[in-house]
Amino acid sequence: MRLVTYRRAGEVRHGRLTDDDRVVEFGDGDLGVHLDGGPTEARLEVALADVELLAPLPRPGKLLAAAANYQDHVTESGAEPLDKARLSPRLFLKPSTSIVGPDATIPLPAVSSEVDWEAELGVVIGRRVRDVAVEDALDAVAGYLTSNDVSARSVDYGFPRDTDDKMVWFFDWLAGKWLDGFAPLGPWLVTADEVPDPQDLDIHLDVNGVTKQSGSTKDMIFSVAELVAHASRLMTLEPGDVILTGTPSGVGAATGEFLKAGDVMTVVVGQLGQLRNTVA
Amino acid sequence: MRLVTYRRAGEVRHGRLTDDDRVVEFGDGDLGVHLDGGPTEARLEVALADVELLAPLPRPGKLLAAAANYQDHVTESGAEPLDKARLSPRLFLKPSTSIVGPDATIPLPAVSSEVDWEAELGVVIGRRVRDVAVEDALDAVAGYLTSNDVSARSVDYGFPRDTDDKMVWFFDWLAGKWLDGFAPLGPWLVTADEVPDPQDLDIHLDVNGVTKQSGSTKDMIFSVAELVAHASRLMTLEPGDVILTGTPSGVGAATGEFLKAGDVMTVVVGQLGQLRNTVA
Repeated sequence: MRLVTYRRAGEVRHGRLTDDDRVVEFGDGDLGVHLDGGPTEARLEVALADVELLAPLPRPGKLLAAAANYQDHVTESGAEPLDKARLSPRLFLKPSTSIVGPDATIPLPAVSSEVDWEAELGVVIGRRVRDVAVEDALDAVAGYLTSNDVSARSVDYGFPRDTDDKMVWFFDWLAGKWLDGFAPLGPWLVTADEVPDPQDLDIHLDVNGVTKQSGSTKDMIFSVAELVAHASRLMTLEPGDVILTGTPSGVGAATGEFLKAGDVMTVVVGQLGQLRNTVA
Repeated sequence: MRLVTYRRAGEVRHGRLTDDDRVVEFGDGDLGVHLDGGPTEARLEVALADVELLAPLPRPGKLLAAAANYQDHVTESGAEPLDKARLSPRLFLKPSTSIVGPDATIPLPAVSSEVDWEAELGVVIGRRVRDVAVEDALDAVAGYLTSNDVSARSVDYGFPRDTDDKMVWFFDWLAGKWLDGFAPLGPWLVTADEVPDPQDLDIHLDVNGVTKQSGSTKDMIFSVAELVAHASRLMTLEPGDVILTGTPSGVGAATGEFLKAGDVMTVVVGQLGQLRNTVA
């Protein structure tokens, strides 16, 4: 099932898409309401063209993301390959103001001239879990979506700082993940029953039609189940929480190419739908 | 005015406290509704004893926090004093699942035996701002609250890792900020008009009645206005967002003393009310 959040008649609503692309409306608010035990019955049906699709989860309780979760992205960034046996997942948080939907425009921020793309598989939590075992973790997943962990590779606040200092570097790295529009999600959530193996999805990203990233979720260091289980050792995961699972190689930073106004990023993950965003 | 979020008759509501500690109810939901243009008229009045106070903002759009914002805390942590002229604020995010209210019990997590306290002034945003100037930043503040940025100083996932590696250290440091209950807020929000100078508030924390932290917001490296302005260069701040402003010296890590089951932390910031939480 493809679940959608959209604006209709000025209000945020949620429902599902039919095979012939009609919208079956469940209720008011975003899909977080549905995942948290809200309505599942049709209350009306409208044409897809009559609604504006929004991010499926525009304001999750939390938006987590995994850094360095594909070896080929680790090595293209100049680091040595990671030894999984001595490693735990590297998670960080992005704010809800970074979330935008399909076709939304992403503003280039004043504080960076090095804005980059990261095509990722997004995971949406469907039930409340804490300390879930790896073998049970996928039972907590409601579904999957296409995402882009847009990242400013440097930030410049207009005065000199010691950016070689590891602490300065790290807090700059974090801040570079947070800007408005830096977490496009969508166009819809595909329910987990329609994704038999989340570790066998192609990941594609192009900029202006030129392929930049072409990978597979097969190559994740930590699987979706391992990421969910790990996150749940640190905090309660709640329905509607979103976890971005890391990006394969092919980011702009590896070659020094960054986004400029007018660029169009298109991300496709498996059969989860195409996420297209213009930079301005 | 003291604004409160509370549970009454099983539902979350918000309102204000009178001088004789009665609750004047404004409406349903938490104070985020009020700050976002919700009701401000009394709909009923009840005794404080008839409600359960919750965190004033139990689920903000974002909970930001500042690391290393008092020189005496920086140096007690073993680092050199910071040079503000070449420094930007060091912000990080905590998840909404870390937020608990006054008198809530904080569970000691399985993944750490080094859980520590950090008394802090919390700032609540009252209007939507982006790129606000330092001199206008306090106009965006709705009010202030007492907070505790509870922190696990190490995390142990049960297998050996190279925790001397700077990247491992940093992601562990971040994760140590995220655990359930690690952001007590409250007991209420004091509106900004009643806090003439947020840079002149005493900060006190005791554990089981023994004073551990005794500082003043005078000693912040970056002021409230500077923190708000800086955060707004990175992202849109929205009504109900919360920013924790850093802790003075006196944390447990400086002497190797950490929290154990049964310990009671009491935080007092200025006249903002006492925040008391038991660890279990």
